[in-house]
Amino acid sequence: MSGSVRREFEAALQAVDARLVEMAELAGEAIGRATTALLEADRALAESVIGDRERMSRLHDEVEEQVLVLIARQAPVATDLRSLLAALRMSGSLERMGDLARHVAKLVCLRHPDCAVPPDLRADIQRMGDSARRLAARVAGIIADRDLDAARRMEADDDEMDRLHRDLFTVILRQPPSGGVQAVVDMTLAGRFYERFGDQAVSVAHRVEFLVTGASEALHGDGS
Amino acid sequence: MSGSVRREFEAALQAVDARLVEMAELAGEAIGRATTALLEADRALAESVIGDRERMSRLHDEVEEQVLVLIARQAPVATDLRSLLAALRMSGSLERMGDLARHVAKLVCLRHPDCAVPPDLRADIQRMGDSARRLAARVAGIIADRDLDAARRMEADDDEMDRLHRDLFTVILRQPPSGGVQAVVDMTLAGRFYERFGDQAVSVAHRVEFLVTGASEALHGDGS
Repeated sequence: MSGSVRREFEAALQAVDARLVEMAELAGEAIGRATTALLEADRALAESVIGDRERMSRLHDEVEEQVLVLIARQAPVATDLRSLLAALRMSGSLERMGDLARHVAKLVCLRHPDCAVPPDLRADIQRMGDSARRLAARVAGIIADRDLDAARRMEADDDEMDRLHRDLFTVILRQPPSGGVQAVVDMTLAGRFYERFGDQAVSVAHRVEFLVTGASEALHGDGS
Repeated sequence: MSGSVRREFEAALQAVDARLVEMAELAGEAIGRATTALLEADRALAESVIGDRERMSRLHDEVEEQVLVLIARQAPVATDLRSLLAALRMSGSLERMGDLARHVAKLVCLRHPDCAVPPDLRADIQRMGDSARRLAARVAGIIADRDLDAARRMEADDDEMDRLHRDLFTVILRQPPSGGVQAVVDMTLAGRFYERFGDQAVSVAHRVEFLVTGASEALHGDGS
């Protein structure tokens, strides 16, 4: 690649990254609003989260389109090609984070006008929601700044989510929640959604790490 | 593309398809064994499912490698490039089906030597496992034969799974299973894993349909 083609390629990659950052921010906002909707049994708010799907899909398609155009026009090789494929995978994980926020929002609609969260589990759900929002914000920063240190810390950041997830089950099993069997089902699913949200965030961070260092450890599967 | 380059490209695409078929078959075997392990509390069998992850990851990497080599060597345009990206996405969905089979297997290990499935839910779980295996087998056939009719029927095939999933919750809510809260948690998760397995199978079928017809409806998100 000549210098000017190189510069053009780098600029195009940055445009891809900008969309990935937007997807991470959107996922973070979505899980934040979904958590509020879940705690407040706010159906309108939940529906707004469900409605975000279109924006997320559009961003995902735009990333794919940008990558296709780049491959077709510039015929990148080796490392550049891998960067583009990594962007596609990150886009997939970020879209899935949006899906998980939507799954939380759907619980709200299923139970409305009742609140899916029994009083004794409100604090646990709030903490998981806060943790998810923080993880999404960190991922946005990691993509924007190619921040290797932050990417490496993500696994530890996600440990908090895993701990909160275990705590939730400890509480549920010690004393079945006041909402009965339905509440156990709903809180089991909600807990799972938050935990998977965290796992996807970690997988995006790993991919950034891979891009920066070329190291391929811990890139497989769904991190579980 | 010249005729001989075209033939070479088609042959390479078929090699990619062969690996995707192998992934679908592996996912089908995995969910079948995971179901048996779940019903029989067979830890060794569950661990063999968990051990399949490596083979699945290798197939996934091979697909990615084949796609990369094809892009680099042949600089495909438009439709061909989209076929290659579709193969990557299918590979991702098939890997996720393997992940879901592994999640079922992990439930077995968590409860061993107890059986995670209470007696009153054995038939439901068996049916969901059978349905998942059938969906995976159908997906393998759809990829191998580019079978548009079968791809279009997949949504209806998956309706059976969705119905089984609803039935499971109806049973759980009507009469809490004999295993108490832990059983409710485990069966909620197992039900979810089977249902998602079906959704991923449908998403692969949609992608084949898209490849054959160029139609893009129903390609977004996770089908939920």
